[in-house]
Amino acid sequence: MPGMSGLPVRAAAGIVTVTPGFRLADVDPDADGGFDKAEAKAALDVERARIQALQERLYAERRRSLLVVLQAIDTGGKDGTIRAVLQGVNPQGCAVTSFKVPSAEELDHDFLWRYHAKVPGRGMIGVFNRSHYEDVLVVRVKGLVPEEVWRARYDRINDFERLLTASGTTILKFFLHISKAEQKARLEARIEDPEKHWKFDPADLVERKSWDAYQAAFGDALTQCSTPDAPWHVVPANRKWFRNLVVARTVADTLEAMDPRYPEAAKGITDLKVPD
Amino acid sequence: MPGMSGLPVRAAAGIVTVTPGFRLADVDPDADGGFDKAEAKAALDVERARIQALQERLYAERRRSLLVVLQAIDTGGKDGTIRAVLQGVNPQGCAVTSFKVPSAEELDHDFLWRYHAKVPGRGMIGVFNRSHYEDVLVVRVKGLVPEEVWRARYDRINDFERLLTASGTTILKFFLHISKAEQKARLEARIEDPEKHWKFDPADLVERKSWDAYQAAFGDALTQCSTPDAPWHVVPANRKWFRNLVVARTVADTLEAMDPRYPEAAKGITDLKVPD
Repeated sequence: MPGMSGLPVRAAAGIVTVTPGFRLADVDPDADGGFDKAEAKAALDVERARIQALQERLYAERRRSLLVVLQAIDTGGKDGTIRAVLQGVNPQGCAVTSFKVPSAEELDHDFLWRYHAKVPGRGMIGVFNRSHYEDVLVVRVKGLVPEEVWRARYDRINDFERLLTASGTTILKFFLHISKAEQKARLEARIEDPEKHWKFDPADLVERKSWDAYQAAFGDALTQCSTPDAPWHVVPANRKWFRNLVVARTVADTLEAMDPRYPEAAKGITDLKVPD
Repeated sequence: MPGMSGLPVRAAAGIVTVTPGFRLADVDPDADGGFDKAEAKAALDVERARIQALQERLYAERRRSLLVVLQAIDTGGKDGTIRAVLQGVNPQGCAVTSFKVPSAEELDHDFLWRYHAKVPGRGMIGVFNRSHYEDVLVVRVKGLVPEEVWRARYDRINDFERLLTASGTTILKFFLHISKAEQKARLEARIEDPEKHWKFDPADLVERKSWDAYQAAFGDALTQCSTPDAPWHVVPANRKWFRNLVVARTVADTLEAMDPRYPEAAKGITDLKVPD
């Protein structure tokens, strides 16, 4: 049925869409697309206004949905991206889920169970702050399950995303790509700035020792699970203002391509009279 | 423990807080507090900025939560209030739940079960677009359960809200009060304006015939369930710009009275070094 597939996804210039042969090390996290900070901020305002207008129509149409998946290494900017891109949408049409360590009940189910429960319903924008990809990332790096288990998950993830796109959900997957030096600077800022202390987790220093293992795990997840229906987008993310702009532009372009419409009026509606 | 109670709630001028002896018919839905539309819109921008700044601290503190309950007769402005007051907050810290006709599974549980599942967690602003009060409103007017059942629910609701406030949730309950003539005008606008057709439900015309029964049911719910910890606020709502302003100001004043703080840094954090 035309229009029921979640497609098409439109990636903004500056983003690298993962295709066969992709190598994460080839993406420059410092890329800025030729923008300076002031230009990027002005352009972001335009994209946010587009997202807000299109969201209203998506919500009114109530037929399809958008799922935005955000992954990054610690301090990569997931929270900041959500705030910059989506602050301004009507919260009634937007549900953000931050996935943390799974509960005992969640661990008693298949690994996709807790994510499936939170996918956006018709008319909604859903945001996954971390996602089902954690089960081939942190789970792999920490060796929480045997290799044959996490390796099999790439196919299960592709099957799961195929179900969603076939049911009217467009999936936008962003990997926010920062350098190891940038992570150091951001961790130091969280240690030094009292207003950022609450974001600092000493465990991040331990995780940083596994930097290379995480990069390898991200690289495999991106290439194994970038499908035509639900491709991965790698966002150069050392410069927050460029990261925000290209994510916002991709969200706006994708919503525009979905072209949500106010539903047609029920027949005879305009003949109705409202009694006193 | 000081600060763990959800209190205090601060109501803006123009709102009527329900106390013993309250009569809904005494509230003028046309009240505008002496504002004109332009003044009210400018004042709303100020309140929205306050809410956004305070929400950041509430989220960072991650100790308490705010539950905003919105009730109104059909076309009373629940959706519009959410958009006007909360568009601009970080969606990561705000979850809106719109309650519709209960599912078979929900009906197999006590009437509060589905609402309890959606109360805001620590750090969050939760919004109930319709709420547990439907079970003493539409359920009563349509006679879906016997009178002794719905009458007993006022006490159950007060118990439920006491649990929440004792656990660090501040509850703000707003009844958006419009006149019968205003409802007629709004229903006619939905019939006449193609961009509003999607909001029109022919069932609203049937419900309108029960106007007096709904007013009586609202009146009882407001007086039976306005407690010192979780009072009801009646918002004159014929003028949307006044409604938006006073709801926003009450939310902002309440968050300010809660005085959320960035958490203290863990001991020794500033001595930590980030390895290369």
